[in-house]
Amino acid sequence: MSRPAVATAGPVRVVGTGLLGASLGLALSGAGVDVQLEDISPTAAALARDIGAGRLAGADGAAPALVVVATPPDIAAENVLAQLRAHPGAVVTDVASVKALVAEEVEARAGADVARYVGSHPMAGRERSGAAAADADLFVGRPWVIVPGRRSAPEAVLAVRSLAVDVGAAPVTLGAQEHDDAVALVSHLPQVAASLVAARLREASEAALGLAGQGLRDVTRIAASDPQLWAAILVGNAGPVAKALRALRADLDAAVEALERAAARGPLAEGTTGPLARVVAAGNAGVGRIPGKHGGAPRRYAEVTVLVPDEPGELGRLFGEVGEAGVNIEDLKLEHSAGQPVGLAILSVLPAAATRLEAELDRRGWRVVAG
Amino acid sequence: MSRPAVATAGPVRVVGTGLLGASLGLALSGAGVDVQLEDISPTAAALARDIGAGRLAGADGAAPALVVVATPPDIAAENVLAQLRAHPGAVVTDVASVKALVAEEVEARAGADVARYVGSHPMAGRERSGAAAADADLFVGRPWVIVPGRRSAPEAVLAVRSLAVDVGAAPVTLGAQEHDDAVALVSHLPQVAASLVAARLREASEAALGLAGQGLRDVTRIAASDPQLWAAILVGNAGPVAKALRALRADLDAAVEALERAAARGPLAEGTTGPLARVVAAGNAGVGRIPGKHGGAPRRYAEVTVLVPDEPGELGRLFGEVGEAGVNIEDLKLEHSAGQPVGLAILSVLPAAATRLEAELDRRGWRVVAG
Repeated sequence: MSRPAVATAGPVRVVGTGLLGASLGLALSGAGVDVQLEDISPTAAALARDIGAGRLAGADGAAPALVVVATPPDIAAENVLAQLRAHPGAVVTDVASVKALVAEEVEARAGADVARYVGSHPMAGRERSGAAAADADLFVGRPWVIVPGRRSAPEAVLAVRSLAVDVGAAPVTLGAQEHDDAVALVSHLPQVAASLVAARLREASEAALGLAGQGLRDVTRIAASDPQLWAAILVGNAGPVAKALRALRADLDAAVEALERAAARGPLAEGTTGPLARVVAAGNAGVGRIPGKHGGAPRRYAEVTVLVPDEPGELGRLFGEVGEAGVNIEDLKLEHSAGQPVGLAILSVLPAAATRLEAELDRRGWRVVAG
Repeated sequence: MSRPAVATAGPVRVVGTGLLGASLGLALSGAGVDVQLEDISPTAAALARDIGAGRLAGADGAAPALVVVATPPDIAAENVLAQLRAHPGAVVTDVASVKALVAEEVEARAGADVARYVGSHPMAGRERSGAAAADADLFVGRPWVIVPGRRSAPEAVLAVRSLAVDVGAAPVTLGAQEHDDAVALVSHLPQVAASLVAARLREASEAALGLAGQGLRDVTRIAASDPQLWAAILVGNAGPVAKALRALRADLDAAVEALERAAARGPLAEGTTGPLARVVAAGNAGVGRIPGKHGGAPRRYAEVTVLVPDEPGELGRLFGEVGEAGVNIEDLKLEHSAGQPVGLAILSVLPAAATRLEAELDRRGWRVVAG
């Protein structure tokens, strides 16, 4: 595959070669950009170099045009300031999950250098961490938030935006506080909720765990995240996250009160069913606002559900035949079966294609599950 | 496909032809069992008949051998009692999501008839409801909890167990309270949590929603559930659900306190990072206990992640080639891309096969994402 043209000229210095930094190095190196790798741990830097993320930063290297601070959020500002001082000609950005905290400290202490700083945050990554998990395509298709400071130079903003686009991300410009409030809702709150629900399973009986279905699995998947990293993120966005959790707690209190009333007076007592139905209805309204595929307006897909025998090649045969029918799979999920060697493949397709696809698959002998 | 032999002789009367009842009717009818359909709504009963779930119960029908009450949980006991009286030779079960409430009322009022009652609960279904969504394979591979009462006749228990097995489910015997405590944790608690998180999105800005990733989507998927049905379920299991929610709230309080301390005194203050790391670590421990595929002991799969262009046939080609490599896909997920016409297919495979599969796919030109 030929290299796509990139606007980032380099050299780019990556400070902190964990998942984000090493992935960035991979993406830029793959595009022919000179990447200098720096990490307080020589081992971490060497690992990043060995996977192809760039070369070790040394005294003989050319001055970087762009520095990306990819350290944990609690030391991001300190590193940004150090890099601004060390490289007077470079634009400096950081990729921390929290922006106001970092921006405040940098703006307070950077002096005139602040013109060369633009905070940012690629909305990418998953539960794993470290350079060993790095991936050049980590950012592809994901939003990359750009947070220009009051005194950021326009060319600095452009350099960071180009970086995002060059690695396949979709740049989104937000203010620092706007960003922090947003991620508090769409990232930090769900993380805390998943962890809180999963924690209740520590004392669950084996019998209870055996009844677990896809609902529980979906709610608790991100509970496998790294505790230390997330503690740093949460304290770094403490105000907005606390606000979101307090609002959730108020609704939770209403639910507990309704349940306690039902437990005491019976399921038909006043003030029981109503508040609980409202909790679920409020959730209906909220989840309906999450954008569908490609970040566009919410789109409802039709689901075509097919039984798939649990053998190599069966799923491939299914999707080959879906492709032959000329239907694109917009989303899909495979459901576990407890005790049976069969799975359910749930294909999300455009509603206009669903009926035709069901008929076609049925004709070819697949067991299509109604609904 | 030849019909598998079934132990259920029938006739089976299904009372309440919503999602569960109609699906049961479809499964039994498909196995050659005579199904009588009853519903307080003639329209609902007719719809179930029209989709092939059975025939309308009438005065000339044979006496049922087994009655399945598949009404909403708040009227299950009443219907069980009526059916025990109406059909003195039949075994009667109900499929409500809550067991203690139903069992207590039936045992209090059924007299000697209680020997013919065995409560049960198929752990099946999803966010949709109604006979239009019915599916004969709804129960395949899912647990079906059997709750024998203190005075249930052994042959009645056997009849209900046979019903479960005949429709492809895996029977699991639990006490009523044991069942209710279990579903409070693995089904009802995650539902409430998903709804509470999703409710916070009602006031989210469009910008915030645009940053939504897979984590938020997973946590809030089941927030699309039916409010009325879930209010009935929750009040019917009020005690155990309230207990689980209070325990969750205690952990939530600790998290909010730590965050408020961080907001007031800074992210490095004492009593901030520690409690939050413990919340996430507790979640790690809990989520690690959820069984893997087929309900067996937890199994860690290796994930092989592949970039898939968003065009018809591409996914089929990928899975065909995975099949050709002789590797079985144990689980899979397709991730949305915000703004880019490309998806990530995350294939879960046995760890021993992962490296080989990655090399094979890479050789065939697929972009395999590391990690």
